[in-house]
Amino acid sequence: METLRWKDGTLCILDQTLLPHKVVYMEVKDYRGAIKAIQRLAVRGAPAIGAAAAYAMVLAAIEAAEDGREGFMAGLTAAAAEIGEARPTAVNLQWAVKRQLGVAVEAAQEPEEAVHRLLTEAEAIFAADVEANRAIGAFGAGLLPLNARVLTHCNAGGLATCGYGTALGVIRAAHAAGKIKMVYADETRPLLQGARLTVFELLQERIPVTLITDSMAGYLMARRGLDAVITGADRITANGDVANKIGTYSLAVLAKFHSVPFYVAAPMSTIDPATLDGAGIPIEERGAVEVTELAGVRVAPEGAVAWNPAFDVTPGSLITAIITERGVFYPPYDFGDKNQDVLPQRHRVHRE
Amino acid sequence: METLRWKDGTLCILDQTLLPHKVVYMEVKDYRGAIKAIQRLAVRGAPAIGAAAAYAMVLAAIEAAEDGREGFMAGLTAAAAEIGEARPTAVNLQWAVKRQLGVAVEAAQEPEEAVHRLLTEAEAIFAADVEANRAIGAFGAGLLPLNARVLTHCNAGGLATCGYGTALGVIRAAHAAGKIKMVYADETRPLLQGARLTVFELLQERIPVTLITDSMAGYLMARRGLDAVITGADRITANGDVANKIGTYSLAVLAKFHSVPFYVAAPMSTIDPATLDGAGIPIEERGAVEVTELAGVRVAPEGAVAWNPAFDVTPGSLITAIITERGVFYPPYDFGDKNQDVLPQRHRVHRE
Repeated sequence: METLRWKDGTLCILDQTLLPHKVVYMEVKDYRGAIKAIQRLAVRGAPAIGAAAAYAMVLAAIEAAEDGREGFMAGLTAAAAEIGEARPTAVNLQWAVKRQLGVAVEAAQEPEEAVHRLLTEAEAIFAADVEANRAIGAFGAGLLPLNARVLTHCNAGGLATCGYGTALGVIRAAHAAGKIKMVYADETRPLLQGARLTVFELLQERIPVTLITDSMAGYLMARRGLDAVITGADRITANGDVANKIGTYSLAVLAKFHSVPFYVAAPMSTIDPATLDGAGIPIEERGAVEVTELAGVRVAPEGAVAWNPAFDVTPGSLITAIITERGVFYPPYDFGDKNQDVLPQRHRVHRE
Repeated sequence: METLRWKDGTLCILDQTLLPHKVVYMEVKDYRGAIKAIQRLAVRGAPAIGAAAAYAMVLAAIEAAEDGREGFMAGLTAAAAEIGEARPTAVNLQWAVKRQLGVAVEAAQEPEEAVHRLLTEAEAIFAADVEANRAIGAFGAGLLPLNARVLTHCNAGGLATCGYGTALGVIRAAHAAGKIKMVYADETRPLLQGARLTVFELLQERIPVTLITDSMAGYLMARRGLDAVITGADRITANGDVANKIGTYSLAVLAKFHSVPFYVAAPMSTIDPATLDGAGIPIEERGAVEVTELAGVRVAPEGAVAWNPAFDVTPGSLITAIITERGVFYPPYDFGDKNQDVLPQRHRVHRE
C-alpha cells in the first residue's frame, strides 16, 4: 500500500485518517491541497511528510510556471514558505522544501525545465527513502536478539515513509531473519496511529503483534519482559536529542529504568544539524478536541480543557543507539556532515 | 452525586459507564444483579466496590432468609463466594464480604435479625468510607506545597468511593486550603475513567483541571514540572506494594526519574495484610475489546490481538508515602494490625 504516488500531474495521497477501515486515495491538484493533507494528517510520519512536501513543491512549480520566467521563483519561493510551515516539528518537511528550492534555482530561467527537474527530484527523494529504510532495517535487525520481544510506538512503518518503514523496517528485517517473537504496539493516543496503522501493517505482513494501551508499557517491561523499544523520529538534533510522537519520552525513561535498549530508527533526512539540542525543536500543540474526543466520539465532559502536545523530546542520553541508513550511531552522538556521502569515522558505526 | 444508595430494599447504583453524558441509577434487586454491575464497571473503584459488595450481601441475605433458619447461612455463604469473586484485584470486595459474613454468623439463628444487622453494617461501611476519605484528604493536603501541580490517574474520587474520594479527596482538601494550582488528569485508557469521571468531578467542584493522554505524563513532568502524583489503590500488600489501575506503575517510575513525590491515597480497608507482596495479587485481565474499541467505536483492524491487564503493581519502594485515614505511612511500610484502632507507633505518621 503506497503512502503517496504521482500520477498524471496529480499527487495521490492515501488518506490515513480513514485507515484501517477504508482505503481512499485523495487526488491533490495544487500545493494548498497538499498542505491541508499534511495538516490534517492524511499523510503523516516525518519521511512521508518530506516526500509529500517534495511533490507539493512540484505542484507549486507548475502553478508558478504559469507566471513565466519573471514570476517563477517569486511564486515558488512564496509557496515554499507556506509548505515549509505546514507542520513545525518534523524536519524532513523543511529539508525537502529546501532541497527542492535548490533544484529550482538551478533551472529558474526555464520554468518548464525546472518543473521537470523538481518532479525528478521528488521521485528520487521518494526512492531514496525506501532504499534508506531497507538499509536501516538491515542495520537495526543486527541489533536484536533471537526471539525478540519488541515494543514500538505510533507508526514508523511503510505508512510513515515512502515504503518499508523505519522502526517497522527494523522489525520487518528482523522478522525476515527469524528473530521476532512478538511486537507490542502502543495504541498511541490521541490519534491511535499504533492501533490503526501499525497493527494494520503488521497483520498484513503476518508479523505477530499485540496491541496495548500506552499506559501498559511499563508493566509490560516489568511483568512480561521486553528486549527492545524501537521508535521512529520526527527530528534529531546535532547532539542526538529526538523529537518523536508524544509518549516516546516516557518510553525512553521506562526503558532506562528496566535496562531495556531504546533504539531510534530514522533516515539521515530526519537529522537537523542546525539545531543544537532538543530545546530548540518547536513542538506542535494540536487542538484539545483530539484528546476530548476519540474517533469522533466525545469522551470528556463539556467544558473540559486538554493539553495536546503532538510530540515530545527524548534526550540522546536515554537513547541506546540511533539507526540510520549510514549505520548505527551511539552516544555521544555526532552525525558528522549529513550531506557527505562518507561514514563518520570517529564513531562506532556498524555495517553489516 | 452518590455512587450508590439503598432505598426500600433496592440497591440503586449510579451507572458510571454512562458518565459523563448520562446520569442513570440502576435498580438492583438481587445480589446477582449487583455482581453484574460490579463486573461491567457500572460501579468501580475499590472502596465503592466494597460498599456495593456489603449491600449485595444484604440482598443475598434477604433471599437466603426465605429458606428459613436452616438454609440461611448455607445460602448466604454460597452467595458470598460468588460476590467475593466478582472481580479479583480490589481487596475491599473480599474485605466487605468477610465482614458481612461475620455479622451474619452472629445472628444466624434469626435470619430477619441478620438481614437487619447486615443492612446496618452496610450503612456503617458506607458512612465510615466517607469519613475515612475526609481524614485521608486532610492528611494528604498537608503533604502538598502551595501552588501545587498534581497529576492523578484513573478516578479515585467520590465516584470511586462512597463520597469525597481518596486521591481526589486529597485534592479536594488541598484545594479548599488554597493549595491547588492545577490538577492534571490522565485520561486512563482503556476505559477513560480519568476523562469521563475525574474531569467531570473536578469541573463540578470548580477545581482547575487539564486532561492529558496517559502518554503525556512523562513529558508533563519534564516540560511543565509537577509537584506530586496522587493515585488511589485497589489493594495494598503488607510490604506496601500497590495494585492500582493499569498505568500507575509507569507513573511511579516516571515520578522517581523526575524526583516528583508519588503518593497513594487509600482507606485501611484497601490494605491486605494477608498478602505479603505484590507478586501475590491477582491481576484481572479483561477482554481485548476494551482496547480494540473505544467508546463503542472500533479503532483497531479486524484480527487485532490485544493485552488488557486492568491493573498493575507498583512496588512500595517507588511510593513516597501511603495516605490512609490513620495517617501517612512511609517506607519501609508496616501497617501494623489494621483492625486495631491505635496508630502504629514505629513509623513516621503525621496527624494534623
